[in-house]
Amino acid sequence: LYSKLPAGKTSIFSVMSGLARKHNAIDLSQGFPNFETDNHLKKLVCKAMKDGYNQYPPMNGIPELREQIVAKVENLYGKKYNEASEIIFTAGATQALYCAITAFVHPGDEVIVFKPAYDSYEPDIKLAGGKPVLIELKGKEFKIDWQEVEEKITSKTRMIVINTPHNPTGIILSKKDMQRLEKLLKDTNIILLSDEVYEHLIFDKEEHQSASKFTGLAERAIVCASFGKTFHNTGWKMGYCVAPEVLMKEIIKLHQATVFCVNHPMQRAFAEYLKSPEHYLQLGDFYQEKRDKFLKLMQGSNFKGTPSKGTYFQVMDYSAIIDEHDVDFAKRLITEKGIATIPVSVFHKDGKDEQQLRFCFAKTDETLEKAAEILHKL
Amino acid sequence: LYSKLPAGKTSIFSVMSGLARKHNAIDLSQGFPNFETDNHLKKLVCKAMKDGYNQYPPMNGIPELREQIVAKVENLYGKKYNEASEIIFTAGATQALYCAITAFVHPGDEVIVFKPAYDSYEPDIKLAGGKPVLIELKGKEFKIDWQEVEEKITSKTRMIVINTPHNPTGIILSKKDMQRLEKLLKDTNIILLSDEVYEHLIFDKEEHQSASKFTGLAERAIVCASFGKTFHNTGWKMGYCVAPEVLMKEIIKLHQATVFCVNHPMQRAFAEYLKSPEHYLQLGDFYQEKRDKFLKLMQGSNFKGTPSKGTYFQVMDYSAIIDEHDVDFAKRLITEKGIATIPVSVFHKDGKDEQQLRFCFAKTDETLEKAAEILHKL
Ligand SMILES: CSCCC(=O)C(=O)O
Ligand SMILES: CSCCC(=O)C(=O)O
Repeated sequence: LYSKLPAGKTSIFSVMSGLARKHNAIDLSQGFPNFETDNHLKKLVCKAMKDGYNQYPPMNGIPELREQIVAKVENLYGKKYNEASEIIFTAGATQALYCAITAFVHPGDEVIVFKPAYDSYEPDIKLAGGKPVLIELKGKEFKIDWQEVEEKITSKTRMIVINTPHNPTGIILSKKDMQRLEKLLKDTNIILLSDEVYEHLIFDKEEHQSASKFTGLAERAIVCASFGKTFHNTGWKMGYCVAPEVLMKEIIKLHQATVFCVNHPMQRAFAEYLKSPEHYLQLGDFYQEKRDKFLKLMQGSNFKGTPSKGTYFQVMDYSAIIDEHDVDFAKRLITEKGIATIPVSVFHKDGKDEQQLRFCFAKTDETLEKAAEILHKL
Repeated sequence: LYSKLPAGKTSIFSVMSGLARKHNAIDLSQGFPNFETDNHLKKLVCKAMKDGYNQYPPMNGIPELREQIVAKVENLYGKKYNEASEIIFTAGATQALYCAITAFVHPGDEVIVFKPAYDSYEPDIKLAGGKPVLIELKGKEFKIDWQEVEEKITSKTRMIVINTPHNPTGIILSKKDMQRLEKLLKDTNIILLSDEVYEHLIFDKEEHQSASKFTGLAERAIVCASFGKTFHNTGWKMGYCVAPEVLMKEIIKLHQATVFCVNHPMQRAFAEYLKSPEHYLQLGDFYQEKRDKFLKLMQGSNFKGTPSKGTYFQVMDYSAIIDEHDVDFAKRLITEKGIATIPVSVFHKDGKDEQQLRFCFAKTDETLEKAAEILHKL
């Protein structure tokens, strides 16, 4: 019995959320809201069950929902995917990311990942026998050094993973970034995996630069998205991905193997719910208020951070408080102060510690206030 | 761009169900009931959503449901799994099978599969770089030739896959089979993958011989089970697997990578619903009546079959009607007669055609009657 992933660890999100539950802490760690998904959406799920949509849906999803998403993507990003062959629904965006990486990364292949990064890309790449090539985001603004990317591309580079809005830093990629990437990938066979699960959580009147928007990217991109992040129901485990047919043909083989298809009544409910675009178009404003509220509450505390431009995360520096490794500090914050966060080092290359914590501000004002009150005492 | 699964095809279940939908045929193909899951269970899902269980559950599942299943397995099979470390919930049994195979099968490893077999094992094995070693079930009773199994075991054999009750043949493994297997695996490192998704669909007062029942098997077995098959809601995509901790530790790494966790409100609902064991204990009798009904309806027709001992499938020979390959015949049955079935050759080695079709009898009496009426004319 030898392990495929000997160094594979339990996700930090499980660990911290588990600790938070155990110590009954205010949980600003794992990324999920503590307010409710729309009652109307819940009722649509109940209606779908009542109407008898309880057996296997088509493998790639019900046509009604495929049409909705294809229309949404076209409206927002100007790219029309084929409803029959270029979209599938997945058991959360996690499954979309896994299938995309596993379908294309062969043993020995290199995959470029920008650090800090969400913690599922690298295990997925390693499980496929691939080699993560890590490039650090530069400076306080976490910029991509495109010169370095160009230098790190080799004949073995199979894929580049981008993530905008970016977890954990809250930065977003600019139009210029995307155009630069487009130019870089021209005339290569490199596949782009674009994790856009926070596409609607974008602030300060910025525009989300989806890979779908750029012809030279869309033709090679797998774009992953999440219903859970957008509609406040991360526990329903519903996501999707879009990709050109030539890529989707391979991804769907992995989809068939890993889950075959996803929750039918919930697909029905989303197909109905998505008919009203305001359900996601107002999300940026909603979370911008949350971010502003949280930052205001934290003013004058010993936690400092550059405002997030997207996602529902805010990274903050605590070096004014103590010189302690962020994992240790984060654990003590739970056990001693009753506040759960995510140490940013877990996203970094070699766990590089910059004495920062990630706070999830997808919480009720009351929760944010209570948390801030405690944090002010540090 | 080269494929990980160049010969990978769309599952026959998708193909035939798709054709059935298109031609508005009576669908006895893909395995799902056309009657409803319990209203009470649907209401429990609605209640869980209303009660706010809409965010990420723990990665390995909610404790309440883990406890229920561990108790159920102990009651039925006498084996007590550790509730914290030896069970996970999965997005259908499909995901459990995938994770089990992917966690342990390394490039070059051999995996013994009995044919005919459910169509997901071999792609999973090939995706992992393994080599399926196919052994045919023998005779009209589809017996395992244990002598042949012994001969086919090599130093490369990593895993053996069994499936009882068996899809598509409806046979079940006997106590003797399991004891023979136990003896065979003693002092080896071979892992047993036991697909038991039809554990409760067993007829004629026979007893399900779970791998969990046999000490020498349980210590090396991953047992996969399905809520969808048991509670008439295949479209909810909920299953689970149990395994000794040493194996589960690796499976959960794949679980984390592939989906992270599964539907929270549905876990809550099942945790409540499973408090009443009659919900699954009466299932054998219920489906035995369906089987008997279907066989009686087919009496005097040109379709002949040995009664299923388990599952909700009945294989029938149509050689008295026509000498045509079963795939062609099955397709014509849909387009010309409006009846969808599954050609048994797709489960066989090299698509060996024995002029048999698989009928799913998990249908209302009315549907079975309508289907039989048409089939009698052939
Ligand atoms: C799938 S658990 C991780 C949730 C999340 O996206 C985060 O907290 O970063
Ligand atoms: C996951 S689709 C296959 C359903 C099934 O188990 C069957 O029809 O054999």
